[in-house]
Amino acid sequence: MITPNQTLVQVLGPAVIASPLQLAHRSGQGPGAFVPDEARVRYQIETATGQDLPGDIFFEKAGPRETLFFEPRQTKAAIITCGGVCPGLNNVVRSAVMEFYYHYGVRQVYGIRYGYAGLNPRIGLPPIELTPKSVSDIHEKGGTILGSSRGQQPSDIMAEFLLEQKINILLCVGGDGTLRGAQDVANEVQRRGLNLAVIGIPKTIDNDVMYMTRTFGMATAMETAHKILDCAHSEARSAYNGVGLVKLMGRDAGFIAAGATLASQEVNFCLIPEVPFVLEGTNGFLEVLRRRLESARHAVVAVAEGAGQDLIRDLPLETDASGNRRYADIGLYLKEQIVNYFRQANIPADVKYFDPSYFVRSVPANCEDALLCDLLARNAVHAGMAGKTNLVVGFLNGAFTHIPISLAVSEKKHVDPQGLLWSSVLATTGQPKQWIN
Amino acid sequence: MITPNQTLVQVLGPAVIASPLQLAHRSGQGPGAFVPDEARVRYQIETATGQDLPGDIFFEKAGPRETLFFEPRQTKAAIITCGGVCPGLNNVVRSAVMEFYYHYGVRQVYGIRYGYAGLNPRIGLPPIELTPKSVSDIHEKGGTILGSSRGQQPSDIMAEFLLEQKINILLCVGGDGTLRGAQDVANEVQRRGLNLAVIGIPKTIDNDVMYMTRTFGMATAMETAHKILDCAHSEARSAYNGVGLVKLMGRDAGFIAAGATLASQEVNFCLIPEVPFVLEGTNGFLEVLRRRLESARHAVVAVAEGAGQDLIRDLPLETDASGNRRYADIGLYLKEQIVNYFRQANIPADVKYFDPSYFVRSVPANCEDALLCDLLARNAVHAGMAGKTNLVVGFLNGAFTHIPISLAVSEKKHVDPQGLLWSSVLATTGQPKQWIN
Amino acid sequence: MITPNQTLVQVLGPAVIASPLQLAHRSGQGPGAFVPDEARVRYQIETATGQDLPGDIFFEKAGPRETLFFEPRQTKAAIITCGGVCPGLNNVVRSAVMEFYYHYGVRQVYGIRYGYAGLNPRIGLPPIELTPKSVSDIHEKGGTILGSSRGQQPSDIMAEFLLEQKINILLCVGGDGTLRGAQDVANEVQRRGLNLAVIGIPKTIDNDVMYMTRTFGMATAMETAHKILDCAHSEARSAYNGVGLVKLMGRDAGFIAAGATLASQEVNFCLIPEVPFVLEGTNGFLEVLRRRLESARHAVVAVAEGAGQDLIRDLPLETDASGNRRYADIGLYLKEQIVNYFRQANIPADVKYFDPSYFVRSVPANCEDALLCDLLARNAVHAGMAGKTNLVVGFLNGAFTHIPISLAVSEKKHVDPQGLLWSSVLATTGQPKQWIN
Amino acid sequence: MITPNQTLVQVLGPAVIASPLQLAHRSGQGPGAFVPDEARVRYQIETATGQDLPGDIFFEKAGPRETLFFEPRQTKAAIITCGGVCPGLNNVVRSAVMEFYYHYGVRQVYGIRYGYAGLNPRIGLPPIELTPKSVSDIHEKGGTILGSSRGQQPSDIMAEFLLEQKINILLCVGGDGTLRGAQDVANEVQRRGLNLAVIGIPKTIDNDVMYMTRTFGMATAMETAHKILDCAHSEARSAYNGVGLVKLMGRDAGFIAAGATLASQEVNFCLIPEVPFVLEGTNGFLEVLRRRLESARHAVVAVAEGAGQDLIRDLPLETDASGNRRYADIGLYLKEQIVNYFRQANIPADVKYFDPSYFVRSVPANCEDALLCDLLARNAVHAGMAGKTNLVVGFLNGAFTHIPISLAVSEKKHVDPQGLLWSSVLATTGQPKQWIN
Repeated sequence: MITPNQTLVQVLGPAVIASPLQLAHRSGQGPGAFVPDEARVRYQIETATGQDLPGDIFFEKAGPRETLFFEPRQTKAAIITCGGVCPGLNNVVRSAVMEFYYHYGVRQVYGIRYGYAGLNPRIGLPPIELTPKSVSDIHEKGGTILGSSRGQQPSDIMAEFLLEQKINILLCVGGDGTLRGAQDVANEVQRRGLNLAVIGIPKTIDNDVMYMTRTFGMATAMETAHKILDCAHSEARSAYNGVGLVKLMGRDAGFIAAGATLASQEVNFCLIPEVPFVLEGTNGFLEVLRRRLESARHAVVAVAEGAGQDLIRDLPLETDASGNRRYADIGLYLKEQIVNYFRQANIPADVKYFDPSYFVRSVPANCEDALLCDLLARNAVHAGMAGKTNLVVGFLNGAFTHIPISLAVSEKKHVDPQGLLWSSVLATTGQPKQWIN
Repeated sequence: MITPNQTLVQVLGPAVIASPLQLAHRSGQGPGAFVPDEARVRYQIETATGQDLPGDIFFEKAGPRETLFFEPRQTKAAIITCGGVCPGLNNVVRSAVMEFYYHYGVRQVYGIRYGYAGLNPRIGLPPIELTPKSVSDIHEKGGTILGSSRGQQPSDIMAEFLLEQKINILLCVGGDGTLRGAQDVANEVQRRGLNLAVIGIPKTIDNDVMYMTRTFGMATAMETAHKILDCAHSEARSAYNGVGLVKLMGRDAGFIAAGATLASQEVNFCLIPEVPFVLEGTNGFLEVLRRRLESARHAVVAVAEGAGQDLIRDLPLETDASGNRRYADIGLYLKEQIVNYFRQANIPADVKYFDPSYFVRSVPANCEDALLCDLLARNAVHAGMAGKTNLVVGFLNGAFTHIPISLAVSEKKHVDPQGLLWSSVLATTGQPKQWIN
Repeated sequence: MITPNQTLVQVLGPAVIASPLQLAHRSGQGPGAFVPDEARVRYQIETATGQDLPGDIFFEKAGPRETLFFEPRQTKAAIITCGGVCPGLNNVVRSAVMEFYYHYGVRQVYGIRYGYAGLNPRIGLPPIELTPKSVSDIHEKGGTILGSSRGQQPSDIMAEFLLEQKINILLCVGGDGTLRGAQDVANEVQRRGLNLAVIGIPKTIDNDVMYMTRTFGMATAMETAHKILDCAHSEARSAYNGVGLVKLMGRDAGFIAAGATLASQEVNFCLIPEVPFVLEGTNGFLEVLRRRLESARHAVVAVAEGAGQDLIRDLPLETDASGNRRYADIGLYLKEQIVNYFRQANIPADVKYFDPSYFVRSVPANCEDALLCDLLARNAVHAGMAGKTNLVVGFLNGAFTHIPISLAVSEKKHVDPQGLLWSSVLATTGQPKQWIN
Repeated sequence: MITPNQTLVQVLGPAVIASPLQLAHRSGQGPGAFVPDEARVRYQIETATGQDLPGDIFFEKAGPRETLFFEPRQTKAAIITCGGVCPGLNNVVRSAVMEFYYHYGVRQVYGIRYGYAGLNPRIGLPPIELTPKSVSDIHEKGGTILGSSRGQQPSDIMAEFLLEQKINILLCVGGDGTLRGAQDVANEVQRRGLNLAVIGIPKTIDNDVMYMTRTFGMATAMETAHKILDCAHSEARSAYNGVGLVKLMGRDAGFIAAGATLASQEVNFCLIPEVPFVLEGTNGFLEVLRRRLESARHAVVAVAEGAGQDLIRDLPLETDASGNRRYADIGLYLKEQIVNYFRQANIPADVKYFDPSYFVRSVPANCEDALLCDLLARNAVHAGMAGKTNLVVGFLNGAFTHIPISLAVSEKKHVDPQGLLWSSVLATTGQPKQWIN
């Protein structure tokens, strides 16, 4: 299957503006090269037999196109960041501005303030102009200089505003809901006559986007989580029957918890949403923890925020402004259960609870993410200038791809309990492969 | 006043064992020098007029003594760490072992396990032998390899155990309660006929020990707190009316909060135990915060855990195992108050709460603390070998001193609201000098 | 093409020892899974047309096998680290020991001291026993606890020693020469009758190994290089016509320089071995640098140690003990050329030269590399236990593969001047695509 | 002795402008307090007998004064940074601007570009305006945003320029030569009729300024040096007879080398300018190093750039643009000597040489230095507004002082070979107290 991609089409046919980028024309006549529209990146890279898998997926390869849809000097681009903060947001903003300005010669680049709120003129947060000078040092800082917010604004109001502002390209950095919303708005705007290319860059430190090897921010979050796990280890080792319990981000997927566990090597129990566990019983978590303390006198537990939700099903649930279901707190619940269990068993135990929360996501991007963000942003600009729309730019097996928004948000990526990552977590922690009641 | 210090005295007079340290004898005949018992370090260094202050205090200067009380080859030393974890504990243990072993030739150095619990043989946690090899790499780790615990054990049992183990020197790293307890035990042991020198090293990241410029762990805690404040700043700036609220350690003294505020320069409100504040009223915290958001759209608040205790007086109180009064949580209280205030005022505000808790104290010692710990530990060993007892080693104005335990724990050091540190915090934050209802 | 792989074969046919690892048998009956020998990982993932490329390469997929060649309780494994230090060596050693010990139940694991020197009994550096306890904290340290050295030892002596020691599995962590040498030794040993599986893990921070997405140590080196580049930027900006010149590792490939340039975003000129440059002429480096200084008053230059070798062709060459050609120093040469050029042009310029050298490679592994090292080591152990031999374990597009040593060392990987990485470097730096005399 | 200090005096007597700072008037009526001109800080804090030392020195205490010399609204202030880069320069600039602007209401604050070059209008580098907004984020960066340079400019030209620009207060951040130069210029300007207060802040990471406990940048440099030493340790341990040789800053004083040695605890030989050493002979450095390698198989050597100058006396000497004598390179010399010695002795040895150079000084200020810089800058502003002149602000025993420039530059501070720091270095390294030929 080759994924279908959308390109803006003018009334008089596709635009054929020559790209100002001085790259080689495919063949090897110098550094850099345009990417032809037919280039593809393969999704499946493993086979059980060496034969091609049926139903393999091929994504359009991202990169600079030889012909553009938008005339750079007349183009007005905007960047918007939505939802929670993520390491690398400022890197994305900076590299996009640099690419628009220096390479394409786009002179009108705007930053939408505070997520979708900035597209609702009634709230009164007008866009700010972004220039190479104004963004020059922002990549060294956490957060987003544009501001962000959760939640939607009425589609018609946002469409009206984009039309009025004559925005041609909207780079949208956000999660599922955000990207879906962007698509709606884009369709609305085009119906009213302005060509608007919407290019998304998925933003989730949870790394749970299908068809992507890694989303930006994940590496930094994992590194920060690793530091916290080391601290929990220090605390645990310093107490008799010390338990260092760390709650990490990961609503639906345990990538941060699993990755940080592997990097740290000091975790004895890693609990993630993908692998259910039980507390009670001879091979339940509490008994196994007790046996660990008996032999080693300390233990480190990493729990993803979305793990064990069945255990706290009856606790009150909430929904945040973006419509994300807000889970009851497994970390606090687990802490309480451990404390009670050992108290009842009359065994001394010293539980130290760590909830790093925002700390994991508000640090500046680390080196790995800084690199990824630069590449994502520049490829997003290439896609926008070529008139691609309704797609996200993704990083897959070392290449960058175009993925239709609808496909990217159709399903979440999860830690595969039978895959390499989880096997290695099991090997490192020595925890039971299955929790049996 | 010259502070009175205690030295062990043998029945036949003070011991006159020549120190094996090859140092110069006071005068300038080579590197290193013994410190005479009469050397003093002055406490007061500022005067309003250039004249000496009446009632100035002179502390005995720490350092290697030319004559020892204990014969190194027959000496048995032990090190104990009590109470909460603090950056630098392992550095202290390591340097003490190295000094005992390599310089004095003491070959029997033991580590007491898990604080005072390790002095109670009924609990069954026998001491471990400490050698240069076994401690060689421990200074790079947070926590304490000896283990620690809160709370006391019966004095007579501990005395009996020390007597039986023939421990001559006990280096005791802990807080007020610990040090006082150590004194009792030492007295008990000596009454029963064994010469036991008890040398304390105050352990509190809160830095609230009188007559000391700085206690170890404080610099590291401040550095870690600084990083969290920067994250809170990133979060706050990324939201419309974003408030980054950070709870920091500091039960009775606000040194960490004040120092990290100065280092970060991004804090707008620093709340510490020493300076009361009010929430309500035109110049109360909430109104001032509102005005800050109106003009700057974000704010960072650092609150020491011991601040504003009068505001939460009615909330339930607890006492932990060491007998420390456990305060109700000002951080959570403040978060709630801020959220409610803005909700009632119908002003959007986005409060991000950070509680780094143990993270601040379980990291390895930073460079500054590593250096301090080495010097404290070696000076503690010098004091013990010379037969000093019932004193703590302190760092004061660049020198190291002996301070009677009873004096050191008699009073807590506080941030002086009229002093340099607080004035600078006021200057940096721009917060009101007084909170008026 | 499916790459041919070697497996040890007993006289009576391949061994069929059941793996003690409690994994699922391929199908989805629980966490973890054995990997069948037929599983393959595809090398080419991009196509110009969506069709399969002719001549695609399929590698054997690494992972735990259901049947082993070696009986764990009778197996004797050894680990050796050769050549220059690289971030992550200790992580590899630790995870290999843990996997051998805890999962396969191999109780005899040895560390060969100081590279091949430790296989020559005449030098007198006997192997050390490695246990979970002895390696428990080593992953937090740079360097290698085993010691390393450059250069070979006579094959027959090493073979004799391995035979005598009855080593069955040799995990060999080193560069090209090391791995080739290991192959020779293995063949020699087997000819003499002992089954010896040699499993290599390529060690090069230069990341220049074919068929691998990334080699361990590279991410850490890049991160450290990034920090140095930021310092060079600070120095350069602080001087009038300040030039921060940084020499980075990368003998034949510029991955570190290119990656750190992208992550830093502050580099104006990135010079790598793959892209020749000239100094003189209107569009030569020196003139372009002059123009940069004229407009911005500072510049940052990152130069890989292997860049511009044609420029220093006449300078004396050396060969190090491993037989690596040692290049004349392009960093110092460039510094001199820049200083002279501006002196002759009578333009003030302030060149600050940074040669971080070993600093880049002797730091502990960062989070990214820690994770990679764990997976590499465990997969190497799996391969060895299954009786695979003469192969290296590689990381390719998110999967782990077996690559015949001969194939892995047949060719070096280079930065593709027409590829994504270099295009992005050109975009970020704004440097000329070609240097014309 | 009370140090004499200079204050500007108007023709009609000293100015009596009331300070706009809302501080308490000495007594305890609220937070913050003005500092009276008579307040003093004592230099000597140690005594051998508890009696005052004859000839003790009392410095004027720094801080906000109740009456100002300059009318804030009519004051024009300038900040200049001279000489080599030092961690914390931007922190000083930022805090000075904030204090001038927000607390005194001075609205004209300028930054002189590129050191003294910016005071010579013929060079054409006009001052830039500094505002809270323009300096808001600079403290997170290394280097100096103002730019710096070495060397002087003609006094009369600089005086003329300051006169023409009507600068009233010049905050001068630089080394000895810079401060002396500033004094000359100030005298010249005043002779021509403009009241110019010159307030210096000593800038030297070497920490070699008399009457100061610590100069800014030192703590950061020490921390960075510590990291390099740890790397050298990793390299050394990873080789047979591995020697990690690290050259550190410290031209005339070994504070960085000594402090980093203590913090690291892994150094075996610390060589500083204050303690001569010999290479040859049974107790010379080379023989002792050999014995160390024999017993431990690795060694770490930290050498300050100014150490052992007598050994390289005959090598060519240079003088840099600031007139600092540039020493021949003891690091490279030592490396060569070690390599040759072991080669001649036919002992394998593997010397890894680290020259971190600028890396140590171009990093951003660490937490400790950030705090110190803030306090130094604000106290410098207080001094300037009060019309003090020809003095530097210093940090002494926890207090801030005014020291006449002439006194501060009259003598250099050195590591005392008989003092605490060096004794501890000897204890930590185990190196000989004296090097005997």
